[in-house]
Amino acid sequence: MSHLKLMIPGPVELEAEVLELMGKPNVPHYGDEWLKAHTETVDMLRRIFQTSGKIFLMPGSGSTGLDAAVHSLFSPGEHVVVGNNGFFGARLTEILEANGAIPISIHVDADTPLDAAAFDAVLRGNPNIVGIAAVHLETSTAVLNPAQEIAAIARKHDKLCFIDAVASLAGTDLRMDEWGIDMCVAASQKALGGAAGLAVIAVGERGWQAIENRTAPMRSWSLDLKRWQWYVDNWGDWHPHPGTMPTAVLYGLRKALQNLLNEGLEARFQKYDLLARRLREGLMEIGLSLFVPEELMTPVLTAAYCPPGINAGQLVKQLETDFQIKITSGFQQYKERVIRIGHMGGAITESDIDELLDALRQIISEL
Amino acid sequence: MSHLKLMIPGPVELEAEVLELMGKPNVPHYGDEWLKAHTETVDMLRRIFQTSGKIFLMPGSGSTGLDAAVHSLFSPGEHVVVGNNGFFGARLTEILEANGAIPISIHVDADTPLDAAAFDAVLRGNPNIVGIAAVHLETSTAVLNPAQEIAAIARKHDKLCFIDAVASLAGTDLRMDEWGIDMCVAASQKALGGAAGLAVIAVGERGWQAIENRTAPMRSWSLDLKRWQWYVDNWGDWHPHPGTMPTAVLYGLRKALQNLLNEGLEARFQKYDLLARRLREGLMEIGLSLFVPEELMTPVLTAAYCPPGINAGQLVKQLETDFQIKITSGFQQYKERVIRIGHMGGAITESDIDELLDALRQIISEL
Repeated sequence: MSHLKLMIPGPVELEAEVLELMGKPNVPHYGDEWLKAHTETVDMLRRIFQTSGKIFLMPGSGSTGLDAAVHSLFSPGEHVVVGNNGFFGARLTEILEANGAIPISIHVDADTPLDAAAFDAVLRGNPNIVGIAAVHLETSTAVLNPAQEIAAIARKHDKLCFIDAVASLAGTDLRMDEWGIDMCVAASQKALGGAAGLAVIAVGERGWQAIENRTAPMRSWSLDLKRWQWYVDNWGDWHPHPGTMPTAVLYGLRKALQNLLNEGLEARFQKYDLLARRLREGLMEIGLSLFVPEELMTPVLTAAYCPPGINAGQLVKQLETDFQIKITSGFQQYKERVIRIGHMGGAITESDIDELLDALRQIISEL
Repeated sequence: MSHLKLMIPGPVELEAEVLELMGKPNVPHYGDEWLKAHTETVDMLRRIFQTSGKIFLMPGSGSTGLDAAVHSLFSPGEHVVVGNNGFFGARLTEILEANGAIPISIHVDADTPLDAAAFDAVLRGNPNIVGIAAVHLETSTAVLNPAQEIAAIARKHDKLCFIDAVASLAGTDLRMDEWGIDMCVAASQKALGGAAGLAVIAVGERGWQAIENRTAPMRSWSLDLKRWQWYVDNWGDWHPHPGTMPTAVLYGLRKALQNLLNEGLEARFQKYDLLARRLREGLMEIGLSLFVPEELMTPVLTAAYCPPGINAGQLVKQLETDFQIKITSGFQQYKERVIRIGHMGGAITESDIDELLDALRQIISEL
């Protein structure tokens, strides 16, 4: 049966095998079978984050995961320097504030990546800052921020480094331990290839030490990662998490990760590169122009200006109505002029890119 | 294909129609189609809670919902009297503490329901208490606490009334507005008949006023119900929640609720009564005895002592291995002696009860 094909920056189009598992009879979130699935998923995520640290699978959205990470890592009143070059940078700032931390914002234009040197400058001037926070892939613009360079600045100043990798993990290279990232958050419905419902929190050694050493009380039961670790330590043989888990989402995610790792992270990245190149060349042929130079974008998400006189919302709508393909438009001031196309996850292939380009060509020629 | 049939107190066995929807291609958590599904689900939940208040569907477990409710309703330092006659009463106490509230615990034995008069006495002696918190159905023992009477005490003293209805909602009568409950939490994977992944928070008028009037800052982004309401007010026409939602879980839940309301809440309760009676008579015939008198239990969950000399864990295990039926054992000191059998949701029928009883009879006769 035909359905609306998702080519948005998450939730992603799901592989048939993932869907099959999502529709299987319900299973409990405890016991041997579950433990096996949960442990395997955690182990695969550890490989994908490229960390030897702790991994927590938490029911919720990416924002839930960011909230739990920030809540646990930073205490109220602590100063954190945070990058902001788009909607999700602003959200990360908001999450810091909501948890009582004091964000010191480095604000740059939406078409400009964050600059590690700016973090360096702020840290040099503010010794009371305890950490850095930044979004890796800014989904609102497709701009990839230099997480490796930003982490290096954190290491140089011996500050905590927190990276929002919700949209980037498994879509582009991210080496948590090697780059010196202390805490990192992702979500099931992006490049990991699962359905929405699980946040993933990775905590490195320094990150965990900071959480263990904090003296300020947590102000939540479900966001407190010390509690999550308590269940790993004490209920680890049957129920290694505090509450009920979205089992169907986890079983689907496990399959998506198995497919990803069987293919290989490197091979997946290369596939994304090919898809991105094919897509971007095609878009430019039709008269769109990239939102930022290609080297500033991730290979899993493309933002492009519509040809002059063509409304982004109109394009998005017609693609959905006439071709059953779902892309999305830009954020805020770019809403009318920019479209965003995602091809994260295992389901989208070259022929999907070609089909999309054909559809765009047809719509634009008739407008 | 045969599978392990769930007769535990959640997650529940899912109806075939619910599973079918869970396995459908992924959809975005925004836009017209989604809004329709989300709004319909919220409206159905309002009918089930029997409230004209606000309903928030939040990604997470029941505990996430409890945490968000407590976080938003009670400020750090506020005194709350909380009932505790089992594992989930203790958890509710823990959630209050984790959020900085000061719980005043009314502790009674696990085989005894909470007594509204005890809340009355504590409130008479402590005018600085701001609210009451209690679990409706204590899942660990199947004991149903008198939510209506407890709420009446809250009303009498003009205090906030918070009820954990995670296991009870749609499994037994609960009339939020009529009984004077200010805030109530449920979860998708219990008697509502969906898969795990969504908490449901219902807030009545007084509850919402208390949240609006609080002056203490929230200490979380994702648990702050004012933020959730902001998205309803400002993004209500396309994305009425702050983050990504577990769409597959919601579509499944919507179907389960449609089935429930087509059947009718009253009819469902009557069905549960019949199933419970059939089950309990059968259990007693085989030599088990009810954990508490039948009138103290909900009709969706039965706890019973095993016959002398029979180990609960052994029964649970053999039912799973030999008959592919999943029940569970008691908590803590009852782990070896008590079994718990759930038949929440739309999928379990009389023949499932009979099949379970036959299996139990056979296992016990051979032990």
